Amino acid sequence: MPACPPPADLLRRLFDAAVASAQPALCVPPHLPSPQELGAGRLVVIGAGKASAAMAQAVERHWQGDPMRLSGVVVTRDGYAVPCERIRIREAAHPVPDEAGLQAAQHILQAVQGLREEDIVLCLISGGGSALLPLPLEGLTLAHKQAVNRALLASGATIGEINTVRRHLSAIKGGRLAAACHPARVVTLLMSDVPGDQPRDIASGPTVADPTTCADALAIVQRYGIEVPAPVREVLTSGRGESVKPGDPRLDRAEVRMVATPQQALEAAARVAREAGYAVHILGDALEGEAREVGKVLAGVALQVAERGQPFTAPCVLLSGGETTVTVRGQGRGGRNVECLLAFASATGGHARIHALMADTDGVDGLEEIAGAVMGPGTLAQAWARGLRPLDELANNNGHGFFEALGASVVTGPTLTNVNDFRAILIEG
Amino acid sequence: MPACPPPADLLRRLFDAAVASAQPALCVPPHLPSPQELGAGRLVVIGAGKASAAMAQAVERHWQGDPMRLSGVVVTRDGYAVPCERIRIREAAHPVPDEAGLQAAQHILQAVQGLREEDIVLCLISGGGSALLPLPLEGLTLAHKQAVNRALLASGATIGEINTVRRHLSAIKGGRLAAACHPARVVTLLMSDVPGDQPRDIASGPTVADPTTCADALAIVQRYGIEVPAPVREVLTSGRGESVKPGDPRLDRAEVRMVATPQQALEAAARVAREAGYAVHILGDALEGEAREVGKVLAGVALQVAERGQPFTAPCVLLSGGETTVTVRGQGRGGRNVECLLAFASATGGHARIHALMADTDGVDGLEEIAGAVMGPGTLAQAWARGLRPLDELANNNGHGFFEALGASVVTGPTLTNVNDFRAILIEG
Repeated sequence: MPACPPPADLLRRLFDAAVASAQPALCVPPHLPSPQELGAGRLVVIGAGKASAAMAQAVERHWQGDPMRLSGVVVTRDGYAVPCERIRIREAAHPVPDEAGLQAAQHILQAVQGLREEDIVLCLISGGGSALLPLPLEGLTLAHKQAVNRALLASGATIGEINTVRRHLSAIKGGRLAAACHPARVVTLLMSDVPGDQPRDIASGPTVADPTTCADALAIVQRYGIEVPAPVREVLTSGRGESVKPGDPRLDRAEVRMVATPQQALEAAARVAREAGYAVHILGDALEGEAREVGKVLAGVALQVAERGQPFTAPCVLLSGGETTVTVRGQGRGGRNVECLLAFASATGGHARIHALMADTDGVDGLEEIAGAVMGPGTLAQAWARGLRPLDELANNNGHGFFEALGASVVTGPTLTNVNDFRAILIEG
Repeated sequence: MPACPPPADLLRRLFDAAVASAQPALCVPPHLPSPQELGAGRLVVIGAGKASAAMAQAVERHWQGDPMRLSGVVVTRDGYAVPCERIRIREAAHPVPDEAGLQAAQHILQAVQGLREEDIVLCLISGGGSALLPLPLEGLTLAHKQAVNRALLASGATIGEINTVRRHLSAIKGGRLAAACHPARVVTLLMSDVPGDQPRDIASGPTVADPTTCADALAIVQRYGIEVPAPVREVLTSGRGESVKPGDPRLDRAEVRMVATPQQALEAAARVAREAGYAVHILGDALEGEAREVGKVLAGVALQVAERGQPFTAPCVLLSGGETTVTVRGQGRGGRNVECLLAFASATGGHARIHALMADTDGVDGLEEIAGAVMGPGTLAQAWARGLRPLDELANNNGHGFFEALGASVVTGPTLTNVNDFRAILIEG
């Protein structure tokens, strides 16, 4: 077994490994077609999402073939553009779609018109892509789609159900973008930020066959008692909104590769922890809930490990991902990861063998460029010594204020990627 | 491997095993002294807690010696008395102490006056015992103690800290009751409902040596900025409130046996599940937090098991205990276990291989004599078919209404015991 680094250092290395696994510069290049594969064709790069510009830049930098054969257009969130030479970067609004997104979607569809069999379309999809590609079916407007969207989000429908409806009101989603590329080959590189990593749910699957139907979408709308505008109802009842189904020959040459997912990020961290001699257990890549409550539950499991050797024996590392939520009640400086960590620290009560790091893989937990924080056995005592009361700070949603005062913040700067939250708990033996 | 019962049946058997492990009629008798052990002495039964009357009844029914050598007095919560012949059952108020509790405490101290070496005191302690034994130190009143208690509960102090203060303001807690029994032998039978099962925290440890000091109690009061009445401050600063410390010769013949704990209940269920051929993993005996959020986290873990075989391979059973909380917002009929289960069912989305039972071991989840409920892959579809919207029902805190409509309630009647919540998740292979 290699010499063990101090727990806080190891935890930081695990987080860095998780983030690195999702860096476009690292996870995109292995999936680029070779110049030989491309042969006489063109490489057309399209895409949408918060990471799409960084992904496009990685393509340009690592493409081994003739730069003149490379072209394309991707759309990213306002402010997320990075410099590219051959691929046009457009920006649009997120999370509420705007006219710029609609124009970008049209631009992308134009870019794949008239392709030939020898051409390859590289489609770069990441979180946020759905809002950034808002192209309503003929007869519908952005306002129609937004009305349905708002009603669905307020109805308690699951994200999978919401996406089923979305895919049947779009001129580009639900496999339609891949169909438009026909007869070219389509390679979609996906960075996932949704639980389950279902390709048809990431950006509403513009290049993925969709087994759900207009009838499914109608049933969802009716189940939640949503009043939809007449043109929307017409699209769904007439079947005019039908998406591209599995088996459609236009998608015969379309393939999907998951290049970065929350699970892959956890697995990358797990490898580093194992190399350091720790047993590693991945509790889930989609643990969700109110951040402070998730922190309490994780504390209960950590204490069980430390005190009873159940369900795992110490020493070990427990990893989890997912995206918690925070109900803001206080005036503090916080984020969902530091809120979860502060609740975890309070509930573990300064246990002598429990350490943890919780941070957002995009480098921004809440509103500040602080990714998260780290805690250990001395955290609570240090806080009391400085006059900080952990539960008062938690009540005030002041996670960043709390951990910053202890010099325990984790700062990375913007990572230009996102595979959700990263939580690592280290229990010494 | 024995033939496997249907998951819902097995889950119910696990719950029944957990409850049975904590039944006074089953868990008390193995710890009774034999008539030979008692010799020429008397068996004096004392105790306090919600289960103390049922424990006393179990002593009477299973005591093998001369009934005339058996006597005693225990205090239980108003309404929790059961018939006893030799042991006097007193009732008092819980959770806010009253004069009846104070008189019962005095009565108990009188019952152990003048004992001899050959006598055995059997002390029956269970949850709620602290409030039921309110005997302030000389110079303090019930009102003084209540004022300190209220301030501590509102301050964010941990239950361990609150108990440290309580033990230094009492004439019966912190080992004083055992000291009063000297020179008799003292056997304390503990039923625990507190996380960690720390004997000195259960009913504030009337028969257990206390390593904490008046100085610790003062530090806690100061840490949380609590203004205490002058007589309370005097008791703590003068050291007059000092509890009985480890090594005190009066406690040389005092021993403590945990006869029922949340952990033991989970272990009892685990044995039944293993006999049925399942791998079993105990996530924790003290998982706490807002019930619906705990349900979401457990759902995330169950889905990880079902979909990725992490951190455990299916088939398996995941057990957990503890006591969740419910913030009531709706008008429905609910309880913390059915609320947790409804959130769990929604978040697992009708997964084909996930089943669960969540119930309160005292048989009463919330306000009704329904212990909890059971769910399986068909639960959500059945609900929709009856026009029940799971998330609406959850928002209305209507867990009992929801599961009752599906015929999925778990009803036991009052179990006369309590080892907190019981949660079992079964994931098929």
